[in-house]
Amino acid sequence: MRLLLGEKGVPYEPVRESPWLRRDEFLDMNPAGQTPVMVNSDRPEALPLIDSMAICEYIEETVEKSAMISGTAANRAEIRRLVTWFDTHFYRDITAPLLRERMEKRLVHRAAPDAKLLREAMKAAVAHLDYVDYLLDNRAWLAGSTMSLADLAAAAQISVADYLGGIDWKSHEQAKRWYVGMKSRPSFRPLLAERMEVISPPADYEKLDL
Amino acid sequence: MRLLLGEKGVPYEPVRESPWLRRDEFLDMNPAGQTPVMVNSDRPEALPLIDSMAICEYIEETVEKSAMISGTAANRAEIRRLVTWFDTHFYRDITAPLLRERMEKRLVHRAAPDAKLLREAMKAAVAHLDYVDYLLDNRAWLAGSTMSLADLAAAAQISVADYLGGIDWKSHEQAKRWYVGMKSRPSFRPLLAERMEVISPPADYEKLDL
Repeated sequence: MRLLLGEKGVPYEPVRESPWLRRDEFLDMNPAGQTPVMVNSDRPEALPLIDSMAICEYIEETVEKSAMISGTAANRAEIRRLVTWFDTHFYRDITAPLLRERMEKRLVHRAAPDAKLLREAMKAAVAHLDYVDYLLDNRAWLAGSTMSLADLAAAAQISVADYLGGIDWKSHEQAKRWYVGMKSRPSFRPLLAERMEVISPPADYEKLDL
Repeated sequence: MRLLLGEKGVPYEPVRESPWLRRDEFLDMNPAGQTPVMVNSDRPEALPLIDSMAICEYIEETVEKSAMISGTAANRAEIRRLVTWFDTHFYRDITAPLLRERMEKRLVHRAAPDAKLLREAMKAAVAHLDYVDYLLDNRAWLAGSTMSLADLAAAAQISVADYLGGIDWKSHEQAKRWYVGMKSRPSFRPLLAERMEVISPPADYEKLDL
């Protein structure tokens, strides 16, 4: 969502929310208790916007510049399929276990990560990068001939996994080159500059040549 | 997806797939290994359409009749938020545990359901029906003044939960009246007529007055 706003040149102000605290004010905004939630400062009386994909569709519909869900209906279906692929499958198999083992356990439970779960997440990351390589064998960008929301969704998930040391770029030349291109975009800079509270990223995390 | 095709009057032919068997031919169509997948018989050479929401957006974009993601960008965002709410949260808290405890355990593991998990799913269903009541206190339909994909997504999840005995309509008058209206739609009839292999639905399942 933030990458999409960045690509479209829409200014935004991130507000930190820790959904696990389940603050009443936040649950009043979103009964599902999940981030992201977006409030349009030009229309503060409007309902808050909720759910990453619903928000991205809203941004795409209201800001014409740099269309990211474009092309024929079939192209758009392929873009949306891949966004769900990364937001759901990549997140479930890689990002979520890495966040749980490396961050939540340390911050909340003061416990060590489970080495077996970390290994499984990193193994899943290899399979996902293989799939990225496969897509890029046939296409200039993940969903087709132009950059799309699929590239933004994939790069967002991969950057969190990379921060948490879950990505091994070895033997993924195609994916690596694509990811370096994504990292070099101005929309990506504010995200790369952020740090989690207790964990530092690997040395190459922000570098534009891996 | 089937309700949307029904509402729009697009004929379709369901093909049964058991995703847990992970057939190679199916994984070749959808590497995520999940249903639904839709093949357009007019364009068999095209990529298969994958992911419930991506397919519904495709149907909505290509078939004008009976728009179900309509209105302003804000209305459309509210529709999409609720579709995700039912497809993700209702599914995770209610439909998925009911399917696991009542169907998968019996069919695959020949085991009895876990009474505690069943009680939790039914308790979650009460909370979700409370939320449906709350939405209908303020709106004619779940996402606003007209019927939308949110109503179809909600009714689809609720009908599976109802089939599996997970819904207690007591003290949910608003939700019940809305659901009876959904059940009476022609798009719903083929779904209500279907039966799972080993489980019969409750006596009222198909009835149009509860």
